Amino acid sequence: MEPVVWLGDGIEVIDQTRLPWEEVHVRLSTYQETAAAIREMKVRGAPVIGIVAAYGIALGAQSIETRNKEQFLAELNRIAETLASTRPTAVNLFKAVGRMLSAALTGDDVATTRASLAAEAETIHADERRATASISRFGAELIRAGSTIITHCNAGPLATGGYGTALGVIMEARRQNKAVAVLVTETRPLLQGARLTVWELTREGIPVTLITDSMAGHFIATGDVDCAIVGADRIAANGDVANKIGTYALAVLARENAVPFYVAAPASTIDLSLVSGDGIPIEQRGPDEVTQIRGMPITPQGVPAANPAFDVTPHRYVSAIVTDKGILRESYGSTIPRVFGCQSSTHE
Amino acid sequence: MEPVVWLGDGIEVIDQTRLPWEEVHVRLSTYQETAAAIREMKVRGAPVIGIVAAYGIALGAQSIETRNKEQFLAELNRIAETLASTRPTAVNLFKAVGRMLSAALTGDDVATTRASLAAEAETIHADERRATASISRFGAELIRAGSTIITHCNAGPLATGGYGTALGVIMEARRQNKAVAVLVTETRPLLQGARLTVWELTREGIPVTLITDSMAGHFIATGDVDCAIVGADRIAANGDVANKIGTYALAVLARENAVPFYVAAPASTIDLSLVSGDGIPIEQRGPDEVTQIRGMPITPQGVPAANPAFDVTPHRYVSAIVTDKGILRESYGSTIPRVFGCQSSTHE
Repeated sequence: MEPVVWLGDGIEVIDQTRLPWEEVHVRLSTYQETAAAIREMKVRGAPVIGIVAAYGIALGAQSIETRNKEQFLAELNRIAETLASTRPTAVNLFKAVGRMLSAALTGDDVATTRASLAAEAETIHADERRATASISRFGAELIRAGSTIITHCNAGPLATGGYGTALGVIMEARRQNKAVAVLVTETRPLLQGARLTVWELTREGIPVTLITDSMAGHFIATGDVDCAIVGADRIAANGDVANKIGTYALAVLARENAVPFYVAAPASTIDLSLVSGDGIPIEQRGPDEVTQIRGMPITPQGVPAANPAFDVTPHRYVSAIVTDKGILRESYGSTIPRVFGCQSSTHE
Repeated sequence: MEPVVWLGDGIEVIDQTRLPWEEVHVRLSTYQETAAAIREMKVRGAPVIGIVAAYGIALGAQSIETRNKEQFLAELNRIAETLASTRPTAVNLFKAVGRMLSAALTGDDVATTRASLAAEAETIHADERRATASISRFGAELIRAGSTIITHCNAGPLATGGYGTALGVIMEARRQNKAVAVLVTETRPLLQGARLTVWELTREGIPVTLITDSMAGHFIATGDVDCAIVGADRIAANGDVANKIGTYALAVLARENAVPFYVAAPASTIDLSLVSGDGIPIEQRGPDEVTQIRGMPITPQGVPAANPAFDVTPHRYVSAIVTDKGILRESYGSTIPRVFGCQSSTHE
């Protein structure tokens, strides 16, 4: 099961909104279709958004009808903006777009540049796959045999185009023959936990128990949880973490009960330009996702609802950040820039 | 809108499982129907469970075909046990059953006893109504004009057969012309917040915003919440509070952000026989309530799910308990027994 496949003249993705009921592979043939798929969350998960946006730019480059490099770049910028404006929180999207725009500067003529763009998108995809493999191996060291692990939302292969971040760690621990069990929060409003994480872990033979988001605190307090691990959509230079709404609550509840709270994320999720999480833009989505579940109303018609898609967990709640460069701990304000300072300048 | 009406030979209740889409009034004509309605949560909310169980015993008493008082009492005990075994957590149920069994001892003959039982059930109902009126008045003093209040689950008129506990406080503040707005958590799995609290507050013209349970921490942390107030299903002598699953998380998040966390409950919710919340039995309900929403699956078939219906919030997270005898604060281990010590001996 490959969540993202580059076809040369299109992108094949699994429509994550239809999982786990239908495994539908959708072909995205234009950059507009690609932008819509990201916006509608057919493809979701910070690393995968970056990968798919990169392929979307490569697709868009193919559709620009000019041999003039300057005109080509102007048009490519417009395409890049369309893709960058799909979702505001995951920084992986902007980093991938930045890498693609840099790659566009290299070729002399338009044909070469188109080829460079396709190659760069494939490199981004390969980089992310490699990064998640490293994260999985580093993170597995944190998991003791016999652990019950709680996770929120979905940070598996679907979300990353590779081995997964949070779920990659859990799956690697399992491959190392550590018995693990996972408490999966359903993750309202869009139920990524109930739909995607349960599906991915079950396919790997890892025992899961589904709970509502409201039950996490109870099970942490009753001593049923050994550690928590989640992915991230953006990590500031001081270690503050933006991730799916509900992550902050989970982190507070974990610390209150002395349960380690881990975040797993690749270099592409780290945003050294932000000194803290205060600067991370939080996507506000439409109220229907809250007032309805799978299209069915759960409240009287017309009731106002708020729908922030992410929250920010201050770094003091984060026991460790598992990255592709190793496991980072406090003080993140020095460890993160030391490990990722050089790299980010070449990637952005 | 009266959630519970005694008809002399039956009980008319609103079927809370069908709200807010249909306002269906159901007639319960036997104690068996009454027990089923409580078990299936057609009637729910700690105080209302006690009231309806009391009427159910009065109904059951009418169906006992004997003039022998001793036989009558033996049969009544069996009926009381059926009602007491419907749900384990709300102590109001057991207190109401206890009051009914005490009342059964007073009359000399069976006919008089039947009348005493009906009268005692009506007294329990009136006591609860009066208690919620007092709670509303005492609690409203805690609410500042212009406040945004977060509440979880449903502790309104539907749940109490009177003015409501947590929602009674909010509604009374509004009647005192304090502008208030309420952030309502949907309260998975059974969505009492989205279905019932939104419905009750909207009918009173109080502005609501619906959120998922996972968003509560975010809005508390961003400074959008002035206080939290919830009801309770059982309060131990030290102030530990059992309430709808998710309450503990809300309390921890409130304290972490220095937001007051209030519990509103009548005398009938206080269980002086328990020194702490550790002894409160937590009802475990079936997995379908988690794996489905309104009958629609949200996860692959056969996925295991946990479904504890309540959690316990240690008293250290509770800023104040609003009771019908006034507002109690730490140390609850001395304030609760002082205020409720005598009363409970007459009621139990």
